[in-house]
Amino acid sequence: MRHSPLRIGVIGYGYWGPNLVRNFHARLDAEVAAVADVDEQKLAQVHLHYPSIQCVSDAISILHDPRIDAVAIATPPSTHFALARKALEIGKHVLVEKPMAMTSIEAQALIGLARARKRILMVGHTFIYTSSVQKIRSLIENGELGDLYYIDSVRFNLGLLQGDASVLWDLAPHDLSIFLYLVDERPTAVQAFGQVHIGAEKKEIATVTIRYESGFHAHIHVSWISPVKIRLTLIGGSRKMIVYDDVEPTEKVRIYDKGVSLKESGESVTAFNPIYRAGDVLIPALDRREALEREISHFLNCIQMGVTPLSDGESGLAVIRILEAAEMSMAQNGAFVPLSR
Amino acid sequence: MRHSPLRIGVIGYGYWGPNLVRNFHARLDAEVAAVADVDEQKLAQVHLHYPSIQCVSDAISILHDPRIDAVAIATPPSTHFALARKALEIGKHVLVEKPMAMTSIEAQALIGLARARKRILMVGHTFIYTSSVQKIRSLIENGELGDLYYIDSVRFNLGLLQGDASVLWDLAPHDLSIFLYLVDERPTAVQAFGQVHIGAEKKEIATVTIRYESGFHAHIHVSWISPVKIRLTLIGGSRKMIVYDDVEPTEKVRIYDKGVSLKESGESVTAFNPIYRAGDVLIPALDRREALEREISHFLNCIQMGVTPLSDGESGLAVIRILEAAEMSMAQNGAFVPLSR
Amino acid sequence: MRHSPLRIGVIGYGYWGPNLVRNFHARLDAEVAAVADVDEQKLAQVHLHYPSIQCVSDAISILHDPRIDAVAIATPPSTHFALARKALEIGKHVLVEKPMAMTSIEAQALIGLARARKRILMVGHTFIYTSSVQKIRSLIENGELGDLYYIDSVRFNLGLLQGDASVLWDLAPHDLSIFLYLVDERPTAVQAFGQVHIGAEKKEIATVTIRYESGFHAHIHVSWISPVKIRLTLIGGSRKMIVYDDVEPTEKVRIYDKGVSLKESGESVTAFNPIYRAGDVLIPALDRREALEREISHFLNCIQMGVTPLSDGESGLAVIRILEAAEMSMAQNGAFVPLSR
Amino acid sequence: MRHSPLRIGVIGYGYWGPNLVRNFHARLDAEVAAVADVDEQKLAQVHLHYPSIQCVSDAISILHDPRIDAVAIATPPSTHFALARKALEIGKHVLVEKPMAMTSIEAQALIGLARARKRILMVGHTFIYTSSVQKIRSLIENGELGDLYYIDSVRFNLGLLQGDASVLWDLAPHDLSIFLYLVDERPTAVQAFGQVHIGAEKKEIATVTIRYESGFHAHIHVSWISPVKIRLTLIGGSRKMIVYDDVEPTEKVRIYDKGVSLKESGESVTAFNPIYRAGDVLIPALDRREALEREISHFLNCIQMGVTPLSDGESGLAVIRILEAAEMSMAQNGAFVPLSR
Repeated sequence: MRHSPLRIGVIGYGYWGPNLVRNFHARLDAEVAAVADVDEQKLAQVHLHYPSIQCVSDAISILHDPRIDAVAIATPPSTHFALARKALEIGKHVLVEKPMAMTSIEAQALIGLARARKRILMVGHTFIYTSSVQKIRSLIENGELGDLYYIDSVRFNLGLLQGDASVLWDLAPHDLSIFLYLVDERPTAVQAFGQVHIGAEKKEIATVTIRYESGFHAHIHVSWISPVKIRLTLIGGSRKMIVYDDVEPTEKVRIYDKGVSLKESGESVTAFNPIYRAGDVLIPALDRREALEREISHFLNCIQMGVTPLSDGESGLAVIRILEAAEMSMAQNGAFVPLSR
Repeated sequence: MRHSPLRIGVIGYGYWGPNLVRNFHARLDAEVAAVADVDEQKLAQVHLHYPSIQCVSDAISILHDPRIDAVAIATPPSTHFALARKALEIGKHVLVEKPMAMTSIEAQALIGLARARKRILMVGHTFIYTSSVQKIRSLIENGELGDLYYIDSVRFNLGLLQGDASVLWDLAPHDLSIFLYLVDERPTAVQAFGQVHIGAEKKEIATVTIRYESGFHAHIHVSWISPVKIRLTLIGGSRKMIVYDDVEPTEKVRIYDKGVSLKESGESVTAFNPIYRAGDVLIPALDRREALEREISHFLNCIQMGVTPLSDGESGLAVIRILEAAEMSMAQNGAFVPLSR
Repeated sequence: MRHSPLRIGVIGYGYWGPNLVRNFHARLDAEVAAVADVDEQKLAQVHLHYPSIQCVSDAISILHDPRIDAVAIATPPSTHFALARKALEIGKHVLVEKPMAMTSIEAQALIGLARARKRILMVGHTFIYTSSVQKIRSLIENGELGDLYYIDSVRFNLGLLQGDASVLWDLAPHDLSIFLYLVDERPTAVQAFGQVHIGAEKKEIATVTIRYESGFHAHIHVSWISPVKIRLTLIGGSRKMIVYDDVEPTEKVRIYDKGVSLKESGESVTAFNPIYRAGDVLIPALDRREALEREISHFLNCIQMGVTPLSDGESGLAVIRILEAAEMSMAQNGAFVPLSR
Repeated sequence: MRHSPLRIGVIGYGYWGPNLVRNFHARLDAEVAAVADVDEQKLAQVHLHYPSIQCVSDAISILHDPRIDAVAIATPPSTHFALARKALEIGKHVLVEKPMAMTSIEAQALIGLARARKRILMVGHTFIYTSSVQKIRSLIENGELGDLYYIDSVRFNLGLLQGDASVLWDLAPHDLSIFLYLVDERPTAVQAFGQVHIGAEKKEIATVTIRYESGFHAHIHVSWISPVKIRLTLIGGSRKMIVYDDVEPTEKVRIYDKGVSLKESGESVTAFNPIYRAGDVLIPALDRREALEREISHFLNCIQMGVTPLSDGESGLAVIRILEAAEMSMAQNGAFVPLSR
């Protein structure tokens, strides 16, 4: 069965909106019906590049437009909840940028609403749709890494300082969504530390340590005030290890066939005999498909087929729960904060 | 005045001992009189390469040798205190590898003893004698970086797993000694997290966050089970930032003339106006002198001149105090532990 | 005086054409009036993205359109001459992609025509409009490098194999146009070597050595069948040296303050006393403006002001003369071929 | 059968001699009996580090020492021939550094002499004993690369300028010995270009192009006046390609499973259908054995077993023949010079 094109409304045409419009516009199974932004100049740009798209200055006219099937929300985080709630209430499918809301209570409300209205609610965790993360997920699933030991992420940058969010809420969702996608086990507790240097309030550097019952653990280190851009994730397993360096132009994933294990012996458990394996390094070929293109294709497909997206409301909620626990830990001088279920 | 060569006894000829012997041996103002090791094969190697050096199987005969002026102790950490104490009691100058002892009480005892006997007590914090760290120190002193914001160190490796020490006590002393050398302010509290994956007891991954009263903070991330070797330190200041990558063969220090600052204005303090500076990167030429050569030259010079070494007992004690606090934090589920003065 | 927008016709919408259209379209002092391509699908793309632009299937209707002031020609090389000639004859200003023609006689004809008709003839040597090459040119002009010794370029790639041109005519024009822009002295002779491996006729690897009277020399090494992409140019001078690595995402230009010189002495000329200077490396900040944007701005400005472009017909001719001499050298078993004046 | 240790005399204790002495000294099947050098200070160093080794100021006393089985010659190139000839005449086995002589006639004389006296004559082409080159050789032998297309080497450095040799004779022998070891086909002609910039006579930059009958070709580019150290060799085959970067600390060999081939079709031969394969990159684990240790082990083994070394006199001669042809080409303005058989 051939579906007629889904009609999309895009709300917000700032940093990310143009990418959404470009990708929806390029598809045969979708059509960008309207774009909303409060800034007249942004709308002029839309008009220049896509004269066929209707431009409106208020989101509400998109939400109430009966010809529109789904909306993509790329406005500032503090507006995500209200817009997504209204859209779901009216019966639109929703793709909302991360973080999906500012509190887990709001996130839960959106999930309930989507379920009640039988609408797709998807969160824009774009990184899990990259060829790199897709490849890593398949390597883990195939048992290439053996038992997982840890995942460790460093995401440093310069120049994304924002007035209305801390580095934790801005950068850490990328890593958290990757962790949640790659690791089947659910985390149990979070500890975090953050620091303000330049601005008055919002933390520019933060570290988050996440515990899991099995002993697996995760660590995130984010900064807005680093002179160098670093996007490095290490994933250690009992058989192999992966280095995922997103700054590399082409060789983003490296699989190291070397590691450490303890010699299995029938002897004393106190005997300490680590075995180091030195092996080859493999850099797999990755397809160059744009992650957002894959994400949007998935969103449209989920609507058409009525299936749950990889980055559904639950995954968005899981990210927010960890962020909330991390905030609480910072407020409690770095104590470990258990994660609610 | 020309000094007659100082006579040195080296205790321990395992991983580090041969470097000590080679460097002392190469000097005109020192002479390696004897080497002690419990392993006959190690002594055979000494004999092969340096037939003139006396080989003994017990440290005690070196400590009691009246012809010997100073000893260098490169034995396992658990033996450092007893050997250094004995050496100082007998009146030898002492160069002891890090960590100088297993507790701060022991470290204090050694400091007191050295003071009482008027002997040089120096800790082998080799990294502070590298051209890289010397260069960074001088850049900080000259105000090139402006106000210091943070120092952040990642030290990952594969294959140094040890049966008798955690990664914290093995790797973090390098970073701590660097921090203490570079930053004049003293830290006030420590928070740490560690994890065991492969062995039964000793942590293979650890993170340490160190607070300072001014808001400056430091972070260490050490691992023994990383597929890639990383030795990266970022130092952020209000004017410039430094990336010190010790894995780079020649371009170890990079000075970034870019950063973020807030616009100074007479207006509202709530106005948030970050200014991003994009500037040149400078990679200073560094001399290629071996750090241990510089360290040993400094040790001999301190003995000859009666001056206090850069890496004296106090700096060794400061490192141990942080390690102890980090251990305590780990035991208290990651709580911040104030540093005793 | 404010100029009314220049009306541009773009001929050819294959690999490069869309970049031209995008850049002309984004300017206030130009307007893309029409695009010509023989491929209906390409025109459909133009229509989709720029509904206001007229789409035509034959270049001739653009050339004869009296409303059009200037044309940009981005068709296959073999058609450049005929299209550019016709355009100049009709009185259009011309921006033609490299190589501007297939022979130096054709190139000279275009130059004569442009002069006779008083029209701007510019060749699309985009690399000389990069921030990197602009920076290097200014460093050379300011005497930072001292006397120039050599320039050495390696341009390797995989996957640009073309049925109708050799690697020499496809890749070497980039390096030649850079050399001609950076070095004021004119070359005197050319030697070249090429090799066919995969296809039947067209060379996939070539080296070109270019001599200058002063002893300065240049070397180019191009390949279409390299597994790695390399775009590396070394420029050696008596005071400093430059490494220009265009594959680097941000740190493209490095200035090495180290080199070799002979000690000036009044003594014997046979004395050989090289002095090695080890110095800092400086990576200058470069603006991120797109080279093609700078090129197009320059083209429009030259039309408006009636000035000669940096990459005028003469520079296009100089590139072709070297290519012709290189072809001749290959045919003569690698002999040096003098360059006609 | 257990061999008694071979007694070795080392002639020349300048840059390379100490490495030879250290490696021979460390073996159980060899013993360094004596070292000769004209410089008293060098001999003092030998005495300091190896008191058991006899130190002499003239090579002749080593050559005439009846207790010595083999000599290693590490003196300036111009003395290689005379010393090696004398040693072979007296009946010593000879390991001589590259180039083995200054002319092919001399090299042939040494080969004849070694054959007549039934002595091992080996040339110190150390690079072919590296783990990297050994690995590449085995990949080629196993057909991993398919048909070989080309080999391309860049060897740039700063600071090896020598008064008595050109960059061609100093650096190119490394690449030539690697080419000759990796490629079974023999070259047929050589073309070369060199340039003097700083000194009065000796060329500091040179390129050499080497032809083979099959169409395979090799290219060398050497420089003494480059700001960066480059040691890069590309090897292209019909199935895979190798990048051998000797400057990389650990990942020296990379195997690219991507390339270009023409579609096999029964259709028109004029059809040009290149197929690009994008594939994984494999970085094989290499053992860290020192190349010179492997070379010396091979030398001793060849003496003990009476077998011909990998880097025998013939391979040394082949290198010199190419160097001579390259010199001749330079003198003939870059003409191709056929290689004598």
